[in-house]
Amino acid sequence: MKKETGILVSVVMGSDSDLPIMKEAVNILKEFGIPHEVLLTSAHRSPERTSSFAGEAAERGVKVIIVGAGAAAHLAGVIASQTHLPVIGVPIDATSLGGLDALLSTVQMPGGIPVATMAIGKAGARNAAIMAVRILALKDDGLREKLNDYVANMAKEIEKKQKNLN
Amino acid sequence: MKKETGILVSVVMGSDSDLPIMKEAVNILKEFGIPHEVLLTSAHRSPERTSSFAGEAAERGVKVIIVGAGAAAHLAGVIASQTHLPVIGVPIDATSLGGLDALLSTVQMPGGIPVATMAIGKAGARNAAIMAVRILALKDDGLREKLNDYVANMAKEIEKKQKNLN
Amino acid sequence: MKKETGILVSVVMGSDSDLPIMKEAVNILKEFGIPHEVLLTSAHRSPERTSSFAGEAAERGVKVIIVGAGAAAHLAGVIASQTHLPVIGVPIDATSLGGLDALLSTVQMPGGIPVATMAIGKAGARNAAIMAVRILALKDDGLREKLNDYVANMAKEIEKKQKNLN
Amino acid sequence: MKKETGILVSVVMGSDSDLPIMKEAVNILKEFGIPHEVLLTSAHRSPERTSSFAGEAAERGVKVIIVGAGAAAHLAGVIASQTHLPVIGVPIDATSLGGLDALLSTVQMPGGIPVATMAIGKAGARNAAIMAVRILALKDDGLREKLNDYVANMAKEIEKKQKNLN
Amino acid sequence: MKKETGILVSVVMGSDSDLPIMKEAVNILKEFGIPHEVLLTSAHRSPERTSSFAGEAAERGVKVIIVGAGAAAHLAGVIASQTHLPVIGVPIDATSLGGLDALLSTVQMPGGIPVATMAIGKAGARNAAIMAVRILALKDDGLREKLNDYVANMAKEIEKKQKNLN
Amino acid sequence: MKKETGILVSVVMGSDSDLPIMKEAVNILKEFGIPHEVLLTSAHRSPERTSSFAGEAAERGVKVIIVGAGAAAHLAGVIASQTHLPVIGVPIDATSLGGLDALLSTVQMPGGIPVATMAIGKAGARNAAIMAVRILALKDDGLREKLNDYVANMAKEIEKKQKNLN
Amino acid sequence: MKKETGILVSVVMGSDSDLPIMKEAVNILKEFGIPHEVLLTSAHRSPERTSSFAGEAAERGVKVIIVGAGAAAHLAGVIASQTHLPVIGVPIDATSLGGLDALLSTVQMPGGIPVATMAIGKAGARNAAIMAVRILALKDDGLREKLNDYVANMAKEIEKKQKNLN
Amino acid sequence: MKKETGILVSVVMGSDSDLPIMKEAVNILKEFGIPHEVLLTSAHRSPERTSSFAGEAAERGVKVIIVGAGAAAHLAGVIASQTHLPVIGVPIDATSLGGLDALLSTVQMPGGIPVATMAIGKAGARNAAIMAVRILALKDDGLREKLNDYVANMAKEIEKKQKNLN
Repeated sequence: MKKETGILVSVVMGSDSDLPIMKEAVNILKEFGIPHEVLLTSAHRSPERTSSFAGEAAERGVKVIIVGAGAAAHLAGVIASQTHLPVIGVPIDATSLGGLDALLSTVQMPGGIPVATMAIGKAGARNAAIMAVRILALKDDGLREKLNDYVANMAKEIEKKQKNLN
Repeated sequence: MKKETGILVSVVMGSDSDLPIMKEAVNILKEFGIPHEVLLTSAHRSPERTSSFAGEAAERGVKVIIVGAGAAAHLAGVIASQTHLPVIGVPIDATSLGGLDALLSTVQMPGGIPVATMAIGKAGARNAAIMAVRILALKDDGLREKLNDYVANMAKEIEKKQKNLN
Repeated sequence: MKKETGILVSVVMGSDSDLPIMKEAVNILKEFGIPHEVLLTSAHRSPERTSSFAGEAAERGVKVIIVGAGAAAHLAGVIASQTHLPVIGVPIDATSLGGLDALLSTVQMPGGIPVATMAIGKAGARNAAIMAVRILALKDDGLREKLNDYVANMAKEIEKKQKNLN
Repeated sequence: MKKETGILVSVVMGSDSDLPIMKEAVNILKEFGIPHEVLLTSAHRSPERTSSFAGEAAERGVKVIIVGAGAAAHLAGVIASQTHLPVIGVPIDATSLGGLDALLSTVQMPGGIPVATMAIGKAGARNAAIMAVRILALKDDGLREKLNDYVANMAKEIEKKQKNLN
Repeated sequence: MKKETGILVSVVMGSDSDLPIMKEAVNILKEFGIPHEVLLTSAHRSPERTSSFAGEAAERGVKVIIVGAGAAAHLAGVIASQTHLPVIGVPIDATSLGGLDALLSTVQMPGGIPVATMAIGKAGARNAAIMAVRILALKDDGLREKLNDYVANMAKEIEKKQKNLN
Repeated sequence: MKKETGILVSVVMGSDSDLPIMKEAVNILKEFGIPHEVLLTSAHRSPERTSSFAGEAAERGVKVIIVGAGAAAHLAGVIASQTHLPVIGVPIDATSLGGLDALLSTVQMPGGIPVATMAIGKAGARNAAIMAVRILALKDDGLREKLNDYVANMAKEIEKKQKNLN
Repeated sequence: MKKETGILVSVVMGSDSDLPIMKEAVNILKEFGIPHEVLLTSAHRSPERTSSFAGEAAERGVKVIIVGAGAAAHLAGVIASQTHLPVIGVPIDATSLGGLDALLSTVQMPGGIPVATMAIGKAGARNAAIMAVRILALKDDGLREKLNDYVANMAKEIEKKQKNLN
Repeated sequence: MKKETGILVSVVMGSDSDLPIMKEAVNILKEFGIPHEVLLTSAHRSPERTSSFAGEAAERGVKVIIVGAGAAAHLAGVIASQTHLPVIGVPIDATSLGGLDALLSTVQMPGGIPVATMAIGKAGARNAAIMAVRILALKDDGLREKLNDYVANMAKEIEKKQKNLN
């Protein structure tokens, strides 16, 4: 496992076919200048690797874990059960059911072990990163300002697009 | 973990609230005289207990594992990823979604790690036990005969009920 | 709006009929000793009250906002769009659709404004509080220990119940 | 915000990617000669802009507001909560769930604040405009006649197509 | 058909078993002092009665038609195809599918003939009446004021309930 | 309406965009030599044309009516309510919901007026024609033989394809 | 199998727990004076009994087969594949999925073997019998008149209920 | 039917259009060196062929039957009702409903006759073969070792892909 000093957010996914979706999270983290890592591990095909990662993340200094998975998406829940860090789940549309399977497998966690579930797909991946930023910004004033700018920019973007409409 | 000699089938569930459903499996196993055990372990609330169970089941002599779980039902998949035994999953209707969440979380396993999924609820629990019997009967002629009797009885039962209808 | 000093978590809901569900979150927060408040405000029936709350929460010292809502559950998203704090959404089963409407209205947020969505109903309310604790524990070692105890207790609870089964 | 005199219908959407769908509404409004405007504003990314629009629409002389939105489509409900004008919602198929998320987020409004929901997508956008015409025609005899002609033409169109079939 | 002078809103339903739901609409109309009628007619079991009603409603002075129906809920669409008045549909949960059948049968109208669809069940019935009021208030200042009071009261109600919570 | 002598089956559809699907029914009817007609009429856009057709079909000698429609598919139910002939419905996948809307709108008819619903799309259109043949064959021995041949051919076809597999 | 002379309609079901639903069909058949039989046979638990029934029904003089089944409702399709008679399927709500499983298992028949599917549950059972009557009435003028009376009575019933409303 | 000596697994499908999916199962069986056959038979279009196959499979020495089918997927259940061998079902996405119809038709088997259901589509086909291997490995140590290697390779594959990511 890639051990960089100062990593704050781990972006984990179950298959490299999830990368085009999870890149959206990575790009936001880059935009906000958050040190992060990208990890591949499967709840089912590499359970030990998943356990090691989950068990060691906190002591490696990671603060938030973002997990993308499709189908019977167990990865976020399995990681959440082995760490006390906040885990954010991104359901991925990887089967013929439009991601409903991944959504329900991620969000319907039984009481005790939460997964903070985002929307299915790219919007969810982007929002996972922003949620991580919101959490980190609780003790980082610089980040909070960047977040305010980001939000302000979204509103300005809409006004700009309105002008192009007219 | 209850270690009886000769246990062939483990009936595992994530919560004792699943017991009224999984009892249906236990009753069938009793009816067929299959040595079995009933275990409580959660994918999320007791991940280490789950891993120990899954990792040791085969060497303890268990041949088939039946797993009942509701909501984001990860337990069957998590066990299946840590044993080479056939794992049979019973989705349980434990939330407001009628068991659709448990069904999709159990059945939509990604390629590599199969869970033999049964119907939601009691019918599924009964069938899980019968599927275990079908598997064990492959090398047990006595069991195969009992299975044939069981099936023949179901047909006779229908004819009896027909008579009551008339 | 009830302004207590030191409130860290706001538990917000759209209707007092949501209280039996959201009480589950409140109880967990009490168990962990987290200063909190319970607020009633509706995205649709009291939009100004909702905006004031969302706009002022951060400066009042609130760190995490938990929002429960049913039907076309807009409340979490509407609050999330007016604060930079992490917002956790609990979909409530308040219509004939089993909470699927509330789940999709809460989780399918478009890119830019995340809502950390939990399971539908009581399990989700409990997990919302635990997610809040996980976030707060990032900078509170005492809380992290309580969290570890909580998790350890869940595992012990299962072993105790196993004994009762046997 | 584009302030034209005499605007009767506002066609509002959350993202410029919704324009190809909402154009269908605009075209019908043009066909019926209804003065209208096209506005871009998001419930989540520009909440203040949305509030200003909703709060001022009635006094600007707008009579009906048509709102298109996808995913967790909160825009129509949020606008409806800040105006007494009739609001017509068009759910847009913008995610992997075929628009079911947008439909439920738009239609399942809690009691008190209605959104007149149309079909998902282009048919819904067309019908939103015709519904606006039906409302405006209540006090405009000329419009009622155009509406009657429009309906009569649909029936004639079918007879014409029948001839081409034969 | 009950022909009262001055009726502005018809509340139509396909079966008298829908009355407990549609009463919610009637009560709101009474609260706002809107002259209304309650009619029973089925798209399938009394098609001619339905056609007569739909064809004559406008000339009888009716301004808005509210239609409640369950199962394959065709009634709102069938009426909308035979009048130029705005038709508001209330899907009713009358089968084992939780009203999803009635919702889709009501809302997914093809382009040309709109039905302004409300939420499934009682909330939808209430909102149908309020939508009717919103439409009628476009040319009735007294009604608009009542509507503003109604909305203001909802917000006050929430503040009152907050006090009871504390 | 095309009035041919001896027409036994009417194939009706709500839009000419349904023709590629309904052609499958027409082809089967041709294959069995059943005199038939193809009609375009909409429940909503041409309600009078639909009523005339439904009301006169029986006296024109038609025996079975096949109806294809998509979205809020009311056409089959509306026709069934105005004739005593057997009506067979084919739900068409014409929206973003995969035909689930058309299926539920067609099949969930309230007690009293049945629509014999087939599968969504081409398989359903084919089966609608075969169902019509099964009904007509009740009093036509020649047709029954053709039907037996048709069924026998399907089985032979499978054996032929098996040979190609090997 | 109960072999009465002159039986025209077989009402078949997979389990005696389906009887309360299928009674609705039987009652309608009695009302119309159609000679009928009630049979219990399961696609899965008594496959041979099912095959014998399906294979012999036509030569026993049966004209229409009504089949009720729940869960993975294969019975109607399995019977339809072994007879050339029209088979009418009634999906029964027998699991936690509200009958959606039975509906899809009954209606989504592949091309070649149709099942005329009715609504889920009691309304569907009633309509199955009326559909059988519609088919039999094609060559029975007396039955057609009864059918016309039945339909006329439904309309009168609505007018009577209207009077009670006023 | 292709009668090879020593066949252990039958891969059965209802249509040759299912072959591209079921090839995934065949390839895994080849990889593990399991003697197998590929058979085409339909529950509905060739019911006798299906019965002969199911009835004779066990005495031909087959140990496990894998069945792929789409739409109202009855084939696995029908076969399971006529053999005491374990039957594994693969739902195939063959209609506009994304395979949900095939999944429910396969998995929701009533108590008594189990079908071990896999995920929809290719992942399910692969897993069906692996489940067959897990069952056969219960009495074949060589196979168990291959299975362990297979699982170990999946984990290694992930580590390899991780390196390519970095």
